[in-house]
Amino acid sequence: MELLQKHHCFAGEQRFYRHHAKSLQCDMKFGVYLPEKALKGQDCTAVIYLAGLTCTEETFAIKAHAQQLANELDLILITPGTSPRGEDVMDDAHWDLGQGAGFYVNATQPLWAKHYQMQTYIADELYQLIVDNFPIATNQDVKYKIGLMGHSMGGHGALSLAFKFPEKFQSVSAFAPICAPSICPWGEKAFSHYLGMDQQAWFAHDSSHLIIERGKQFPNILVDQGLDDQFYSQLHPEKLQQACDQVGQNLTLRFHEGFDHGYYFIQSFIADHLRHHAEQLHGV
Amino acid sequence: MELLQKHHCFAGEQRFYRHHAKSLQCDMKFGVYLPEKALKGQDCTAVIYLAGLTCTEETFAIKAHAQQLANELDLILITPGTSPRGEDVMDDAHWDLGQGAGFYVNATQPLWAKHYQMQTYIADELYQLIVDNFPIATNQDVKYKIGLMGHSMGGHGALSLAFKFPEKFQSVSAFAPICAPSICPWGEKAFSHYLGMDQQAWFAHDSSHLIIERGKQFPNILVDQGLDDQFYSQLHPEKLQQACDQVGQNLTLRFHEGFDHGYYFIQSFIADHLRHHAEQLHGV
Repeated sequence: MELLQKHHCFAGEQRFYRHHAKSLQCDMKFGVYLPEKALKGQDCTAVIYLAGLTCTEETFAIKAHAQQLANELDLILITPGTSPRGEDVMDDAHWDLGQGAGFYVNATQPLWAKHYQMQTYIADELYQLIVDNFPIATNQDVKYKIGLMGHSMGGHGALSLAFKFPEKFQSVSAFAPICAPSICPWGEKAFSHYLGMDQQAWFAHDSSHLIIERGKQFPNILVDQGLDDQFYSQLHPEKLQQACDQVGQNLTLRFHEGFDHGYYFIQSFIADHLRHHAEQLHGV
Repeated sequence: MELLQKHHCFAGEQRFYRHHAKSLQCDMKFGVYLPEKALKGQDCTAVIYLAGLTCTEETFAIKAHAQQLANELDLILITPGTSPRGEDVMDDAHWDLGQGAGFYVNATQPLWAKHYQMQTYIADELYQLIVDNFPIATNQDVKYKIGLMGHSMGGHGALSLAFKFPEKFQSVSAFAPICAPSICPWGEKAFSHYLGMDQQAWFAHDSSHLIIERGKQFPNILVDQGLDDQFYSQLHPEKLQQACDQVGQNLTLRFHEGFDHGYYFIQSFIADHLRHHAEQLHGV
């Protein structure tokens, strides 16, 4: 793990690291904001943020305006990359497939399977790297107090990985998530390339199906959605609502007039998400 | 004035405009954050933020994390570009001269004079555009309640333009400003190209000289400087302190251990700057 950047930020530090990711067979970068408490070596709760299409490990750190409150709440913030990267890594000319568009699944198709194992990377490899290297609190069951949130493609990642691995993630929230990737153009394109043409195989990675399959897993889920979102037709928040209703999973789904899909929207509500995770992680 | 982007952000709006700048003979973009009060058409105080080398009108809006508090304080935030731009505009291969590096002066040298009139652009043309188009409060003397702040090259711009035009700017602050451009490599390079080789002509644009010449103009100046600033040798905060001491200009110059030159530093102290301007502008 190589330290690339370190910036004092409020009483904590915003850092960026590079490491070799075995699961992805390439080097990966990630960001970590360490609040003052973590710098002193004291155990903190943590939230992993999964970013959207075209974003990198720096996007959230620069644009989401989360560090001040994270420091106050003693929250470590982890920001992974959004796909495997590098000259040797399969890519596509369009921005919604390939590098920058890993969709947080394990690819099964020959062209993509070698590098595109983002589910394993986030939930196993990076997860282990984080708990080995940063002071993350555990609960009485010795589960790490780690939450998961994300935006757009990363909102799909957060919801789907949280329901796949509820023993690893104790809280979940999302901004404008892709709630039903099996039935939207972005998801159909990515899943057909990464997972093949059998749509039944897609449902295991589609939150609107996963939640029904797995049932209630979290005390509550927080999701914010702008009503002027230019990608609204890709997102299907109603499918998330239906799935949660069907299994009795509490969901706070808030619609916000005038807000769009970008980080000016995210910064406007990031405080509520950090508090949501801090409260849920504190309680577990 | 053409609206390019509009984003709901907290209860206000982050906007970006393009207009033809007569003084620069090119099209220019600028950002404006309008708090809720301004959106309702009620008069607000305003602060113009001048960015540093290589930055654009978007940098502060994305990275400084100022909008939430600006909305609470009823402050309009204006973010101009950092130089004239375009294919027809003189440029240099290096990032510290030409496009992105206008240094907020009026160039006198033949190669640069046609477009590089940033002093006139900021203090006259853009200033007028802003007061004509946004609800800016005035005081009893019918002076606009507009403050000026900036970072690095833009900190030089803020300090120098504020002391050149104290009737236009009622408050001033800076992050890691270039306090004595006449004696640092960045300033020597830019001033020799834009203003010529006569160093006497440079002093009229050098805050460490200007302040001595103009005397006390503001109730107080706020300047923050990181002690791990990688460009510290370019900045000469001691020259600013000396000039202010010599003429009795109150200066709050704060040094911060561990902080560097970038926006993780700026976001950590932006709240104090916004409050500084709000208080000073409220009082005038």
